[in-house]
Amino acid sequence: MLSKGDIKFIHSLSQKKFREETGLFIVEGEKMVAEAIESDFVVERVLYMDEIGEESMSRISLLSSPSPALAVLHQKRETTVQLIEDGLYLALDSVRDPGNLGTILRIADWFGIDGIFASEDTVELYNPKVVQASMGAIFRTKVQYTGLYSILKELKESIPLYGTFLQAPDIYRERLSKNGIIVMGSESNGISSEISDLITKRVFIPEFSKSGSKGSESLNVAIATAIVCSEFRRSSV
Amino acid sequence: MLSKGDIKFIHSLSQKKFREETGLFIVEGEKMVAEAIESDFVVERVLYMDEIGEESMSRISLLSSPSPALAVLHQKRETTVQLIEDGLYLALDSVRDPGNLGTILRIADWFGIDGIFASEDTVELYNPKVVQASMGAIFRTKVQYTGLYSILKELKESIPLYGTFLQAPDIYRERLSKNGIIVMGSESNGISSEISDLITKRVFIPEFSKSGSKGSESLNVAIATAIVCSEFRRSSV
Repeated sequence: MLSKGDIKFIHSLSQKKFREETGLFIVEGEKMVAEAIESDFVVERVLYMDEIGEESMSRISLLSSPSPALAVLHQKRETTVQLIEDGLYLALDSVRDPGNLGTILRIADWFGIDGIFASEDTVELYNPKVVQASMGAIFRTKVQYTGLYSILKELKESIPLYGTFLQAPDIYRERLSKNGIIVMGSESNGISSEISDLITKRVFIPEFSKSGSKGSESLNVAIATAIVCSEFRRSSV
Repeated sequence: MLSKGDIKFIHSLSQKKFREETGLFIVEGEKMVAEAIESDFVVERVLYMDEIGEESMSRISLLSSPSPALAVLHQKRETTVQLIEDGLYLALDSVRDPGNLGTILRIADWFGIDGIFASEDTVELYNPKVVQASMGAIFRTKVQYTGLYSILKELKESIPLYGTFLQAPDIYRERLSKNGIIVMGSESNGISSEISDLITKRVFIPEFSKSGSKGSESLNVAIATAIVCSEFRRSSV
């Protein structure tokens, strides 16, 4: 049985403020909870609907229909991404939408990305919508929140920095290096001008729209990330 | 000034039932409304916050923060997708999530897809979340809702049917035909077994996860759609 205090405490983790104060976060769903337990995240508590009852579960759940399992986990603090030989990385410059970040984690996991650098104003990793959209990839991807400009300025001496732009060589025809940091910009503004200046390899994802000038102006940031990651992995097979 | 009746009527279009009864739907946002007006959709009414006031706008808006413009449009009924020479198409087998369908429309627009066949149980095209996620691509893409099995059974005689599977030739190494119908399955079950049997060209998007057996098991359907469309267009450049 869960006490009123337990319910209040767990439910409070829906708020960023309380996640930051406690260093905890929530994951929901049988599969994700099982993956959390097997991961190297420290588990604070696991709750099953069978044990606490449907009513208690629906009061702590953040989902519209509560799932059979919920875990409270400890956040990883101060993750550091290390450069390795032939490593491929992402850098996220102000990605704000939690669904996009979660999807990007899933893409990073699929394509074996060795680590993600995220600007300080990128949406919080432990936001429940990020966690759920990652479908468990959050347990398998390293994300370092950092002053993106200064770290990229330093790293550009040792690894190519890729970015997508509207005017640049066609990514399908470019020879992509084995290693690199792929910089992705925000949903509304793309890569900031400050960080654009650091990019050493500019590429362009060609558009094939048949609507001419009325065509699509951009791809969603997660979609663009997927296409660029796919191109890197394809050309290295 | 909007009457109470107007507000009630427009707001009712958030419900599928009323969209079906009236054949109308809503689009919000200055850019999307401008695109709607330029499109070949029939416009019933356009409302600007400047004219009706913020309060009325927030009462008809379906967004969390109402935007400066909202349009009521007539749905296109009975869209028919025609096969053309070297045409590239999508077929959606039970895509249920409105965000995914909207994103797929945006991808289809970007990659110049010549039409989309959607199973009857695919989420409704005029669902406001589909419309908004499409970022205007809904005005530029043809979607035909249809009995997917029977139409694909007929079309497979004249055009290759592609589908992604876990056990199949690597899409990066396959020679893709210029024309084809790319079949994408549902979020939870992939392509149904009935439709799987119709697929003439099976392909596989390789996984590069470094987490071994604990790795990602699948890509989101919109992400997979993007990667496959990108491969088709790349190999035809």
